[in-house]
Amino acid sequence: MLIVMKLDTPKDHLEKVLSKAESNNCKPHIIYGTTKIAIGLTGETRSLSLDDFMTMDSVVDAMRISKNYKLVSREVKDETLINIGNHIIGDGMLQIIAGPCSVESRTQLFDIAGELKEMGIRFFRAGAYKPRSSPYAFQGLKEKGLELLAEVKKEFGMIIVTEAKDTDTLQQVAEVSDIIQIGARNMQNFSLLEKVGQIDRPVFLKRGLASTIEDLLMSAEYIVTQGNFNVILCERGIRTFETATRNTLDLNAIPVIKQQSHLPIFVDPSHGIGMWDKVTPMAMAAVAAGADGLMIEVHNHPEEALSDGFQSLTPKNFKELLLRIEPIANAVNKKLDLTK
Amino acid sequence: MLIVMKLDTPKDHLEKVLSKAESNNCKPHIIYGTTKIAIGLTGETRSLSLDDFMTMDSVVDAMRISKNYKLVSREVKDETLINIGNHIIGDGMLQIIAGPCSVESRTQLFDIAGELKEMGIRFFRAGAYKPRSSPYAFQGLKEKGLELLAEVKKEFGMIIVTEAKDTDTLQQVAEVSDIIQIGARNMQNFSLLEKVGQIDRPVFLKRGLASTIEDLLMSAEYIVTQGNFNVILCERGIRTFETATRNTLDLNAIPVIKQQSHLPIFVDPSHGIGMWDKVTPMAMAAVAAGADGLMIEVHNHPEEALSDGFQSLTPKNFKELLLRIEPIANAVNKKLDLTK
Amino acid sequence: MLIVMKLDTPKDHLEKVLSKAESNNCKPHIIYGTTKIAIGLTGETRSLSLDDFMTMDSVVDAMRISKNYKLVSREVKDETLINIGNHIIGDGMLQIIAGPCSVESRTQLFDIAGELKEMGIRFFRAGAYKPRSSPYAFQGLKEKGLELLAEVKKEFGMIIVTEAKDTDTLQQVAEVSDIIQIGARNMQNFSLLEKVGQIDRPVFLKRGLASTIEDLLMSAEYIVTQGNFNVILCERGIRTFETATRNTLDLNAIPVIKQQSHLPIFVDPSHGIGMWDKVTPMAMAAVAAGADGLMIEVHNHPEEALSDGFQSLTPKNFKELLLRIEPIANAVNKKLDLTK
Amino acid sequence: MLIVMKLDTPKDHLEKVLSKAESNNCKPHIIYGTTKIAIGLTGETRSLSLDDFMTMDSVVDAMRISKNYKLVSREVKDETLINIGNHIIGDGMLQIIAGPCSVESRTQLFDIAGELKEMGIRFFRAGAYKPRSSPYAFQGLKEKGLELLAEVKKEFGMIIVTEAKDTDTLQQVAEVSDIIQIGARNMQNFSLLEKVGQIDRPVFLKRGLASTIEDLLMSAEYIVTQGNFNVILCERGIRTFETATRNTLDLNAIPVIKQQSHLPIFVDPSHGIGMWDKVTPMAMAAVAAGADGLMIEVHNHPEEALSDGFQSLTPKNFKELLLRIEPIANAVNKKLDLTK
Repeated sequence: MLIVMKLDTPKDHLEKVLSKAESNNCKPHIIYGTTKIAIGLTGETRSLSLDDFMTMDSVVDAMRISKNYKLVSREVKDETLINIGNHIIGDGMLQIIAGPCSVESRTQLFDIAGELKEMGIRFFRAGAYKPRSSPYAFQGLKEKGLELLAEVKKEFGMIIVTEAKDTDTLQQVAEVSDIIQIGARNMQNFSLLEKVGQIDRPVFLKRGLASTIEDLLMSAEYIVTQGNFNVILCERGIRTFETATRNTLDLNAIPVIKQQSHLPIFVDPSHGIGMWDKVTPMAMAAVAAGADGLMIEVHNHPEEALSDGFQSLTPKNFKELLLRIEPIANAVNKKLDLTK
Repeated sequence: MLIVMKLDTPKDHLEKVLSKAESNNCKPHIIYGTTKIAIGLTGETRSLSLDDFMTMDSVVDAMRISKNYKLVSREVKDETLINIGNHIIGDGMLQIIAGPCSVESRTQLFDIAGELKEMGIRFFRAGAYKPRSSPYAFQGLKEKGLELLAEVKKEFGMIIVTEAKDTDTLQQVAEVSDIIQIGARNMQNFSLLEKVGQIDRPVFLKRGLASTIEDLLMSAEYIVTQGNFNVILCERGIRTFETATRNTLDLNAIPVIKQQSHLPIFVDPSHGIGMWDKVTPMAMAAVAAGADGLMIEVHNHPEEALSDGFQSLTPKNFKELLLRIEPIANAVNKKLDLTK
Repeated sequence: MLIVMKLDTPKDHLEKVLSKAESNNCKPHIIYGTTKIAIGLTGETRSLSLDDFMTMDSVVDAMRISKNYKLVSREVKDETLINIGNHIIGDGMLQIIAGPCSVESRTQLFDIAGELKEMGIRFFRAGAYKPRSSPYAFQGLKEKGLELLAEVKKEFGMIIVTEAKDTDTLQQVAEVSDIIQIGARNMQNFSLLEKVGQIDRPVFLKRGLASTIEDLLMSAEYIVTQGNFNVILCERGIRTFETATRNTLDLNAIPVIKQQSHLPIFVDPSHGIGMWDKVTPMAMAAVAAGADGLMIEVHNHPEEALSDGFQSLTPKNFKELLLRIEPIANAVNKKLDLTK
Repeated sequence: MLIVMKLDTPKDHLEKVLSKAESNNCKPHIIYGTTKIAIGLTGETRSLSLDDFMTMDSVVDAMRISKNYKLVSREVKDETLINIGNHIIGDGMLQIIAGPCSVESRTQLFDIAGELKEMGIRFFRAGAYKPRSSPYAFQGLKEKGLELLAEVKKEFGMIIVTEAKDTDTLQQVAEVSDIIQIGARNMQNFSLLEKVGQIDRPVFLKRGLASTIEDLLMSAEYIVTQGNFNVILCERGIRTFETATRNTLDLNAIPVIKQQSHLPIFVDPSHGIGMWDKVTPMAMAAVAAGADGLMIEVHNHPEEALSDGFQSLTPKNFKELLLRIEPIANAVNKKLDLTK
C-alpha cells in the first residue's frame, strides 16, 4: 500500500500515519520525492482500508500497489536520483563506469585509472573479490585489492565501484567502495541483499543469468525494504541458446524497467556480448534504448588480463567508444557526464 | 573457395576460371563488386588447389572460406547493396518498412498506406497470407489480399513487402510483392528457400524463434546458392525464459552479422518486444547498433486489428518514432531515407 | 464446442446435429470412440448455445472446450489408438521405430533392415528427403531413396516411416510411407500440415526446437481439422542454454501431453540428447515417463554415416537397448511390441 | 594431475609423493578407493611432469585430468559412496528424501514425519531457512525451524536434510542437519561452497536455474577442494522458454553426469516439473535414467502449505509414488532402500 502526503506535511500528521500503519503490523517506508512524500507500507496491508488513510490530515492519496514488488515500483515515484561525488545518476545524465575486470597490481590499476581520468571518467570499477566458476581461476587480490582501490581513490579522486562477494567481506568492501556491486551470481543471495540494504552506500545490482526482469526487481525490493533506496539496476546479458555471443544482452529490459520501476538502469555490454570488438555498438544501442549509464571493461593489456581480457577494451578503443556514445546520448537528450 | 578477379577482367580470362571450376565439379557464383569480381565456388572444392587459380590471368587472389556459410560470408565482400525503386538498402541509408500486420480490407489498407506515404514512407508491408499458430486464427485474405496490395502499389507507388507462406503461392506473391518476406517459422523451410532463390526479387528473411545467427546465415546461403544474392536479414526476437516481453529482441545479432556477412540486416522491434509502447526505444537501439533498416507494424485502429494489434503503433505514434529515430540515424552517420 | 452422442445414434439423429452445426457456419468433425460418438465443432461456435444441442435426440452431452486446441484436446476423448499393419499405437503397447537417419544405399538399407527385423522391429525409419541446416550437407537420395524404401517394405514387410519435406513431394512420400513424418523444422509449416491432414496416412509430428507443448498441439490441430485424426506426437529435444547435450530432451512433455491430449506421444532420444552412448538411459526414462513409443537411430557403420552418425546406435547396442527397455515397459504395464 | 597408488602403500611412500607435490606448490587431495589410492593435485601442476611421479615407489599411474573440474571427475574414480545412518548413497541403492517444503509447525512436521517413517522413509527434508524471490514471502521459521527438525530427528530417528542459506547460519544448520542442502540460487555462492567444504557433513548441491552441467560440477569442485568429498548433486529443473511446466527438469543431466563424474546424482521432480500430479511420472523417469535418489515434496495439507503446495504430494499420493517407483528401480537393478 502506498500513502501519498504533501511535501510540507507537519510532523504530527506524518506520525499519525506512521503509527496507524505500525499499529496494524505494517512497516512504513518513507520516500521523500520532489513534490510529495510517499509512504510505502509493507506487511499485513490487507487488514487496512484505503479509507483509513484518505481521511487523515495531509494525506493526498492512498492506493494499493498492483505488482509483486512494491517500493521499487514506478507506482511509488517516477525516478530515483542518486547523487554521488557531485555526479547524479538519473535525471538525464549518462554516467560511465569503467575499469578493468580485476585489480591485478598497483601499476596496472594506476595506469588504467590515470588514462581513464584523463578522458573524464570518474566512476572506476575493478574487482578485488572475484566470484569465478572454477576454484582454480584467479579469485582476485582480495584485501590487497581493496587497499589498491583505496589508493586509486585517494590519488585520482575516483568514485570506486567494486563487488561485495559475501556477507563476511561486505563491511570491508563498504569501507573502500563508494558504490557496492552485487554480481549476477549473487543476485538471489538474499542474505547478502538484506545486509547491503542496511549499509549507507548505493548498490549496483546485476541481473542474474537466468533471472527474469521481475526477479531482478524483487531482489532490488529486498535491498530497499531494509532502508537503502539507492539501488542501481544493471542488465548484463542472460543465458539463451545462442552461442555466437557470450551472453544475450537483453536491451528489452530497459524500456520494461523504465515503465515498471523508478530505479536507474545501467547496461554492461562487456559481459553482455562478451567480445571486445562488439562492445561499442551494444553500448550505443543501450544508450539509445534509454539506459542511465554504462559499465565498460577497460584494460591496458587485455591480452595479459587475469580475467575477461577478450571482452575488455584498450584505453584507445574506449576513447573511441566515448566519442561514438556522445552523439547518441545527445540524440536522446541525455548528457554524457565526463569531467573535463 | 573464393577467386577474386580484376573488375576489367576480359571475358576469356573469366571463362577460363569458370571452366576450370566446372571441370572439377564445382559450381561458380559470380559476384560483381565495385572494385573487384568475386567468384564463389561451391561443391567439391577440396579437389582444387588455390595455386590452380592464382597463376591464371586476371586473378588477384584465391582463398578458402573458413565459415560453414560461404557466399554470404564477409570474406566474399564488404557489403551487399540492394537498389529497389530508387531506394538503396545498405550504403549508409536507413530504410523503414511499415504497415499493418495483415491486409484486412481495402479501406484499412488505403487509409494506412495514405498516412504512411504522407510521412515519406515508401516500403509498405502487410500480410496477405498469414502463418498462424492456431488453425482458428485469421489466416489472411490470401489472393484478395494480394489484389489489394497491388492496388496500393498502383495508387500510392509503394514498394510492397509481403510474405510468401509456401511454395504453392510463392509465384503469386512474387507477381505483386517487390520484396518477398520469408517468415520466422519458415526460416528453415528449405524447399521454400530454394524456390525463392530462383526468383528475381529481393528476399526479406526473418530469423527463426530458436535459430542461431549461424542458422540464419545458412538459410540465407540456401537462397544465394540458387542465384538470388539480394537477401535482407531480419532480427525479430528469439525465445528465451523471459516472459515480460513477447520475445527477446536480440540486438547482439547486428554487430555479429555485420562482422560475419555482407548482407544487410533489418530489425523488427514490433515482434521483437511485442508491446507497442516499447517499440520506439527498441527501434532506436536497433539503429544505434547498426541496423540497415526497420520493419514496424502500424495500424490505424490497433484495438480492432485482426492480428497483433497490441504491438502495432498508430500512425501518430509511428510519426513520433520517426522523429526520434532520425537523430539516432544521424549520430551513426546514416541517412533516414524518407521521401519528402 | 463438443457434442457427445450415443454410439448407436440413428443416422437421422446424427444428421440433424450436423445440419444444425453447418447452418450456423460451424464445421463438424465426427470422432468415433469406443462407447460414444464425439462431434467437434469448429468455426463460429459462439453463435450456438449448448442447449441447442442438449435437447436433440441421441445427444448425451454438449460442452465448450476450454483450450486453444479443440479436437486434439483430452476433453474430446481419452486416447487415440492407431492400428497399422496389425500393430496398435496406444492401448498399452510400446512401439519402437528404428533405422538409419538417411537412406544411403541399397546395401546399407537392407543390412540394417535385416538386422532390425531379426530383433522383432517392424517400424522402419530412414530419410529419403533430408532437411539440413546447410545447403552443402547431404540432402538425401530423394526419389531414389523412396524407391529403396519401397523395396525394403516389400522384401521385409516393414512399416515405413519417412519424412515429407515439402508439399511438392508429399504425395510421392505418401505412396511409399505408411506413416508420414513431419520434421521439427517443419512443425509450423502450416501449408504442409494442412496437406498432410488431407491424406489418409498416420502422421508422425515432431516438436519444433523452440516450440512450446501448446504450439505442438496447435500444429496437430491443423492436421486434425483437415480430417486426419491419426497424429502421433514426438518429443525430440528443445533448444536451451545447455551445451553438454545436442538438445535438451524434454520428458516433461510426456505427462503434460498425456493430461492435455488424447494423441499418442513418442520420444526420439537419439536427436534429443544427441550422443549415442546416452541414448539408452534416455529411452528408458521416456518409457518410464509414459511414452507410447520410441524412435531410435540405428546404423550399421555409424562412423561412416552420411548424417548424425554420432547419435546412432549400432545394431548390437540397439539390441542391448531393447533388452533394457523391456523391464521398464513391464514396470509401467506396457507391452514392448516386438514380432518374434 | 592425478597420482594413483597401491591401496597398501606404506606411509613413507605416500609421504614422499605428498612432499614432492607440496614442494612444487601443489595441493594434494587424498582419495581412498576400494582398490587404489588416488591423489589429486591442484595448483601449479604444469611445473610437474608425470615422470616425476611414475618412478616413485608404490605409484601405479600418473595422468593429467582433461576436464576443467579435476577432483570430481570420473577420471579420479568410478563412484563415490556415502554412508549415513546405515544407509548408503550410491552402490545400487535408490534413496528417497521426502518431506514438506518448509517447516511450518510442530504438528505439521510431526504428522508428516510420522507418516513418512511408517512408509519406510528415513531421509526427511524440510526447510527452516527459505530463500524466496520475494521479501514478502514466508522466509521460514529459521532457528525455531531447526529446533523442530532436531525434535523430529530425536523422536523418529530420521536423517535430516535441510538448507543452509548463508555462511552466517551454516554452523547452526550443520548442528542439526545430517546432510546440508545448498539451494539452486546459491549454487554459485562460492563463499558458501567453500565453507560447507570445510564441514564434516555430506552436501546436497542443487543445480542452478541457468547453470550448465559443467557449472554444477565446478561448484562441486569448490566443495571438494576444501576437503569435503561427500557431495550429492541434484537436478531440479532449468529455465527454458517452455511455460507449461514450472521448470524444465533436465534428465539428460543424469547420463552426462554419470559419465563425467563419480558423484551421486539425485533428482527433485517436485521443483523440476512443478505440478504435483506430474511428479510421479517424472520420478519414474529419473530412476529409469539412472538417478541414485529422489527428493520429493510431501505435505499433509498441500492446499494450506506456506510454500510450494501446488507441487507437493499428499502422503497418500506419495505412497502411490513409492509403489510405482519400486518396479522401475528393480528394472534398473537398483534397490529401493525403505526401512520396513
